[in-house]
Amino acid sequence: MESLDHVRAIFRDAPFIADLGIEPLSMGAGRCETELAIQPRMLQRTGQVHAGVVTTLADHTAGAAAQSVMPAGSIAITAELKLSLLRPARGERLACSAVVLKAGRSLVFAESEVYALEGGARTLVAKLSATLAVTGPA
Amino acid sequence: MESLDHVRAIFRDAPFIADLGIEPLSMGAGRCETELAIQPRMLQRTGQVHAGVVTTLADHTAGAAAQSVMPAGSIAITAELKLSLLRPARGERLACSAVVLKAGRSLVFAESEVYALEGGARTLVAKLSATLAVTGPA
Amino acid sequence: MESLDHVRAIFRDAPFIADLGIEPLSMGAGRCETELAIQPRMLQRTGQVHAGVVTTLADHTAGAAAQSVMPAGSIAITAELKLSLLRPARGERLACSAVVLKAGRSLVFAESEVYALEGGARTLVAKLSATLAVTGPA
Amino acid sequence: MESLDHVRAIFRDAPFIADLGIEPLSMGAGRCETELAIQPRMLQRTGQVHAGVVTTLADHTAGAAAQSVMPAGSIAITAELKLSLLRPARGERLACSAVVLKAGRSLVFAESEVYALEGGARTLVAKLSATLAVTGPA
Repeated sequence: MESLDHVRAIFRDAPFIADLGIEPLSMGAGRCETELAIQPRMLQRTGQVHAGVVTTLADHTAGAAAQSVMPAGSIAITAELKLSLLRPARGERLACSAVVLKAGRSLVFAESEVYALEGGARTLVAKLSATLAVTGPA
Repeated sequence: MESLDHVRAIFRDAPFIADLGIEPLSMGAGRCETELAIQPRMLQRTGQVHAGVVTTLADHTAGAAAQSVMPAGSIAITAELKLSLLRPARGERLACSAVVLKAGRSLVFAESEVYALEGGARTLVAKLSATLAVTGPA
Repeated sequence: MESLDHVRAIFRDAPFIADLGIEPLSMGAGRCETELAIQPRMLQRTGQVHAGVVTTLADHTAGAAAQSVMPAGSIAITAELKLSLLRPARGERLACSAVVLKAGRSLVFAESEVYALEGGARTLVAKLSATLAVTGPA
Repeated sequence: MESLDHVRAIFRDAPFIADLGIEPLSMGAGRCETELAIQPRMLQRTGQVHAGVVTTLADHTAGAAAQSVMPAGSIAITAELKLSLLRPARGERLACSAVVLKAGRSLVFAESEVYALEGGARTLVAKLSATLAVTGPA
């Protein structure tokens, strides 16, 4: 398990995550929580947050949860993901909570929930199911 | 069916699509092709394009293909998507080609293929399968 | 909400569910639990329960959970499903627990967890994420 | 690549596939075609073939296509699958055609299309996208 400062540095090392301003809030064994401030440039024509932004947040948080249970030198890389868009994502912020369902030697299964934070309300807007491949040390 | 100029304007009306620079190349009945110039800010820590960018391109192109078969006043909105990440996405550009598998009254099923263009080579890097919900005129 | 006897009759009305011997254990608002006795004819070459049997159990239980929140005369029919196969399914029985994530006017999102029961142990072996389309009264 | 007789024997070695009567029609490098005669016991309450039967056919055919590109001693096992149910499956028979999208050292991505054969018509009723894990020789 890694310190939150170390996790923050790792998030900033991923240019697209830094570009969107996704920040880790907490990280544990097989868990990760993140947040993002919604910006006008992140929207779809309809005014809701674009599915691509929601997927980025959900996928990267699931990846961080998976990474938290990797042995030293191994990296977990998303092989496939499915996102269910339950409700329109609107508000000031998005919060994401990911958990590892099963960590195997070569595959990790993880899930994320994405919540929209709007005026004090917290609404589940999307759920991700992902499979990650473990790439071992060379 | 709509003129490509009209389609370009629609793409620019989606702030996140304009932000990433996704451009439509062609649009037909149940089909759409798009392209994106890879920028350093779009990458993952590993140097490949972040899965969130690939998903955005694949999803928005599938949405445009679905929209091309909607009756006037109806909008197709992604209900769920699955992305298979076949190979690392690297190169100068990403190209995407989407096709509608089935357009029903309330649901549209569509698929996208994403290719990485690198030094003359064109490599299939991801495949998307999506379900879109049709929202009728009020 | 319907009585368990009524739910049992509905399960027996679905020939493939009767053929596999899937039985409802409980049913509530947006929830359903079912069970199945593993038979030798249900196996894959490897000796584990075939993914098709696990999917049938997970999908039908999710459908029953969705049906429990339908207005009279409406039917929820699976539009797409994703199954993650976390561990080999082996043992005497499979148990399934499904829950509705979001019930809308035209779409229902539901999830199922499948457990293998073997010699007193209960192991999570699969997780389903499904989208169901609501078909209204004629 | 294996002879069709050998493939038939392998299909019969999977009890659930033998139980449903799924038969291989052809098999090549990264491809497999199968068929199944629809029986009354395979139906859903609505009279269409149960999604679980369609999934079994699509998954097993994708698995056979993946297996056709495995090195000796390696087995491809489904890690996750997604099935889109485009249209109700009705008729005399179901036919399935699977193809490998990408065969890697540890993961194989494959797709299947399922067609309903009814009175001379052949209708695309479902599409599967699956990820298979390669289990090497001990």
